[in-house]
Amino acid sequence: MTRQPLFTGVIPPVVTPLTAEGDIDTASLERLVEFLLEGGVDGLFALGSSSETAYLTESQRTRALEVVVKANAGQVPVIAGCIETTTNRVIERANTTRDLGADAVVATAPFYTRTHPAEIERHFRQIAAAAELPVLAYDIPVCVHTKLAGDMLLRLAADGVLAGVKDSSGDDVAFRYLCLGAADLDFAVLTGHEVVVDGMLLGGADGVVPGLGNVDPHGYRRLVDAARAGDWAAARAEQDRLAQLFEIVFAAKDTSGTAAGLGGFKTALMLRGIIATNAVSSPMAALDEEQTAAVARILDRAGLR
Amino acid sequence: MTRQPLFTGVIPPVVTPLTAEGDIDTASLERLVEFLLEGGVDGLFALGSSSETAYLTESQRTRALEVVVKANAGQVPVIAGCIETTTNRVIERANTTRDLGADAVVATAPFYTRTHPAEIERHFRQIAAAAELPVLAYDIPVCVHTKLAGDMLLRLAADGVLAGVKDSSGDDVAFRYLCLGAADLDFAVLTGHEVVVDGMLLGGADGVVPGLGNVDPHGYRRLVDAARAGDWAAARAEQDRLAQLFEIVFAAKDTSGTAAGLGGFKTALMLRGIIATNAVSSPMAALDEEQTAAVARILDRAGLR
Amino acid sequence: MTRQPLFTGVIPPVVTPLTAEGDIDTASLERLVEFLLEGGVDGLFALGSSSETAYLTESQRTRALEVVVKANAGQVPVIAGCIETTTNRVIERANTTRDLGADAVVATAPFYTRTHPAEIERHFRQIAAAAELPVLAYDIPVCVHTKLAGDMLLRLAADGVLAGVKDSSGDDVAFRYLCLGAADLDFAVLTGHEVVVDGMLLGGADGVVPGLGNVDPHGYRRLVDAARAGDWAAARAEQDRLAQLFEIVFAAKDTSGTAAGLGGFKTALMLRGIIATNAVSSPMAALDEEQTAAVARILDRAGLR
Amino acid sequence: MTRQPLFTGVIPPVVTPLTAEGDIDTASLERLVEFLLEGGVDGLFALGSSSETAYLTESQRTRALEVVVKANAGQVPVIAGCIETTTNRVIERANTTRDLGADAVVATAPFYTRTHPAEIERHFRQIAAAAELPVLAYDIPVCVHTKLAGDMLLRLAADGVLAGVKDSSGDDVAFRYLCLGAADLDFAVLTGHEVVVDGMLLGGADGVVPGLGNVDPHGYRRLVDAARAGDWAAARAEQDRLAQLFEIVFAAKDTSGTAAGLGGFKTALMLRGIIATNAVSSPMAALDEEQTAAVARILDRAGLR
Repeated sequence: MTRQPLFTGVIPPVVTPLTAEGDIDTASLERLVEFLLEGGVDGLFALGSSSETAYLTESQRTRALEVVVKANAGQVPVIAGCIETTTNRVIERANTTRDLGADAVVATAPFYTRTHPAEIERHFRQIAAAAELPVLAYDIPVCVHTKLAGDMLLRLAADGVLAGVKDSSGDDVAFRYLCLGAADLDFAVLTGHEVVVDGMLLGGADGVVPGLGNVDPHGYRRLVDAARAGDWAAARAEQDRLAQLFEIVFAAKDTSGTAAGLGGFKTALMLRGIIATNAVSSPMAALDEEQTAAVARILDRAGLR
Repeated sequence: MTRQPLFTGVIPPVVTPLTAEGDIDTASLERLVEFLLEGGVDGLFALGSSSETAYLTESQRTRALEVVVKANAGQVPVIAGCIETTTNRVIERANTTRDLGADAVVATAPFYTRTHPAEIERHFRQIAAAAELPVLAYDIPVCVHTKLAGDMLLRLAADGVLAGVKDSSGDDVAFRYLCLGAADLDFAVLTGHEVVVDGMLLGGADGVVPGLGNVDPHGYRRLVDAARAGDWAAARAEQDRLAQLFEIVFAAKDTSGTAAGLGGFKTALMLRGIIATNAVSSPMAALDEEQTAAVARILDRAGLR
Repeated sequence: MTRQPLFTGVIPPVVTPLTAEGDIDTASLERLVEFLLEGGVDGLFALGSSSETAYLTESQRTRALEVVVKANAGQVPVIAGCIETTTNRVIERANTTRDLGADAVVATAPFYTRTHPAEIERHFRQIAAAAELPVLAYDIPVCVHTKLAGDMLLRLAADGVLAGVKDSSGDDVAFRYLCLGAADLDFAVLTGHEVVVDGMLLGGADGVVPGLGNVDPHGYRRLVDAARAGDWAAARAEQDRLAQLFEIVFAAKDTSGTAAGLGGFKTALMLRGIIATNAVSSPMAALDEEQTAAVARILDRAGLR
Repeated sequence: MTRQPLFTGVIPPVVTPLTAEGDIDTASLERLVEFLLEGGVDGLFALGSSSETAYLTESQRTRALEVVVKANAGQVPVIAGCIETTTNRVIERANTTRDLGADAVVATAPFYTRTHPAEIERHFRQIAAAAELPVLAYDIPVCVHTKLAGDMLLRLAADGVLAGVKDSSGDDVAFRYLCLGAADLDFAVLTGHEVVVDGMLLGGADGVVPGLGNVDPHGYRRLVDAARAGDWAAARAEQDRLAQLFEIVFAAKDTSGTAAGLGGFKTALMLRGIIATNAVSSPMAALDEEQTAAVARILDRAGLR
């Protein structure tokens, strides 16, 4: 029997372009979705961390997801983050997400509040019972300060509660055991670590959710295709190239990792002509002229301008 | 010149009673507010961590605050948490809070997302510029995983951005420097550490935001009054008694600190006849029969049943 | 029945003066011990964190302890750190410590290696069984990355394993429960937090181990005496003065907390004429001329030059 | 130009067998070294974390290293941990290490004490200046609670200070950048993550320091050989097999990660007949009968008994 996880391949977290006034820039967002689809992505992850979901108001979240769903027009699955502190809030957001036409919801462990393994398991079971859409777990300790236990994830997978996981934990050992444990399950094991995708695919990952995939979807397409073809030398070479491109996230210094990373992606997309501004949400600051020039040099080196 | 911080004394974070179905139990909440006012509190803190604010939907938050404001009927100041991940979301909630009649808003550092000192300072300045109400900072690293820097707080106090801080950081050294630094400022330095209030008041704190104050407001009233009268032996004796009462938060084992602490407070309030159930929000579990009996024994020992 | 813990009052961790070449400066160390005794301290804590014990070779540790014991000449108890990664290493060091004439040994939880509550408890039991001296636990999570559980400490106290604890955990809630739990035990509850001693004594602490006590032992003597006399206003005023003096540890920027804190103490002692240099161990750097001038200003403000 | 790092391939951290009384079991240690050499390892890492170095007294450390050097008889390089809190202590130990005939020393960032990037860099420069042997950095935040910065490591590599790094940080992104940065340097980039070696080698690692390599050196030999031959499917299959074998470290529950991991390795070696007991150092407890049976079943499944 062959595994058939629902979500595989390249599924970038779609950044949310903003106008200088801080509104959703819908024209830029439409262009970005077209660019990603043209680049051959297998899915779109809206309202994730890289989409500034923690910075958007409810109405902005709704607007951003509407635009992504409409621009995608059913070409690939759209999975949507429901990044809320606790269960009932996630469920409320999941209902809106379904109404807006997304194909799956993505939820983290409870955050802000202190939590417990038994509570986390109940959390996912209650969300899945209410959501009427496939649910993916988002394992992102840097944001929620809890690591999702591998045995819990596999138990929830076997019980049909979870359709997959986006792993941004950086725990490569746990990730390997997830891949081994999911070998007989239709459970998508996706890595969020965009600079080690070759090794993760070698170890059994089903796909990748690369923030950098906004900037160079074609590169990740080639990387995944090479891996699927068993051409690991080509996969590694592509990954090495992408790792050098990823240095755009280090252009901004003395700011938050979010502002530097997300700001670097947006600046690169602006320089590539896909989106109109590199504006980011309050209280973050956009990359300045000098930092933008640094991003431009990295794009030039990569042949992307 | 005498300091005149806006908020001083005993300001309990009002727990949010729920029905067995998970709705706001408005009758119980009204009774609780009356009980606290009768107990002599100096203010009410709605929608804080102990109010389960991270577990309530937007409409539940609004309802809970409405009930508190109405039941209080202007007797003491009502300060209200706007616990949101980032700036624009806090501002949106602050506007609702003002419309509902609260007297001040309480905001944390950005959370979920990674942040940076310069972003945190901008965050508070932008909130204060938009809020049309006094703003208190909520320093709670256990929830947001960032400690607010003392020099930033004092700078924002001197600039009229912040009216005070609720310190739940547990950093007693930083707290002492806050007290020293606020000696010439109308800036309320409030501790959230309910079992060391005597020492904090001795060191210069303006007041306390005690979760346990839901259960025994009269005790905190006596403690603060003794300290103000310079009767430190009496203050210590009252604090020792309250520290033993606080053991209700250890009745539940093998659960989250939130479920144990908040669940302990709610169970005690139920046993004292103030609220109808000890229900807590998903994914937490309420204290069971055995744990409830343990809480009852502690109340008995304290003469509170 | 009155408690009679073995170690109470002011017990400074004795810094270890070094020559410019990095050797133990025995003449300076002798002068420091005399200065502390003249200042009225109740005990001396040698080879603690503030003594640079983690930086000294075995022979340097031995030499430093020899000098302290000899200069003290039995006037007050000398307690000595045996700061080693695990049980057998602590025991080996404890044997040397006893041979050198110390009156008690101080040990932390295991560090460097990952550990477990059951292992920590065995660790202290085995040390106490082998040490032939009273054993104090050193609760210092910032160094060993484990918090000692209060119930374990009280169990070990009741079993006669531990004679006391130096608490540098900063967990003021746990500390209060230790004080409450030790109310019927001859177990010394000592705080390492030198800027909140008034509040800690009010809450029941038996004494303090203040790094800053190297610089101003007379101040801590007055603080403890005022507290014992029930003059809490005087205790607070003295503590506020000492908290301002403690700012010498912030004179060095962009360095480790250890280098800034310890370097600040040594610089102040040099400026007060007690020790010859402000040299610190590799890889730390001593305070430079400008930082030394900042320390001098703080000493002047405090009337200590 | 071809890179020629000094240390590559399979370099297991040699566990230190103990007698039931806690002494070094030299006969078992000799058998273990022979077993590893027969298994085709490229080097031996003595006195690392898996060697219980944090648990051994100075004389035990010396004895263990003597036995490894003698049993190895120059067949492969012996690198030896000098796991000490700070610079002078590492240097003192490095001198002993050189006298005992080791080929390189391995040192971590300072631990126990709080440290700083500038201090860490000075630390390694001073060690290298004094050591008279090649120095490898050991990046192990789980033990020392500091991550070594990649740019610092590459700067020290370029300056000839460091001959390599053993990376047990679990930061796969930083590891990839190390591999990219070392592409023109004779700097050995070794991973300590034994269950993801295939992916790490694909990404450019020079070798692996696998604790599990004590139990199955032949497996790691095959894995590295397959990778070098470009047969990534074979490398992955071998790694998957080894990942399942690694489950021996989960046989002990409710104990420290060190006791479970190290105890699992020792128990497997005892069951394979290489060493005499599965004794571990105080305060750890050895695996009991039931846990030993669990390890035996895993060995059976892997065909190693």
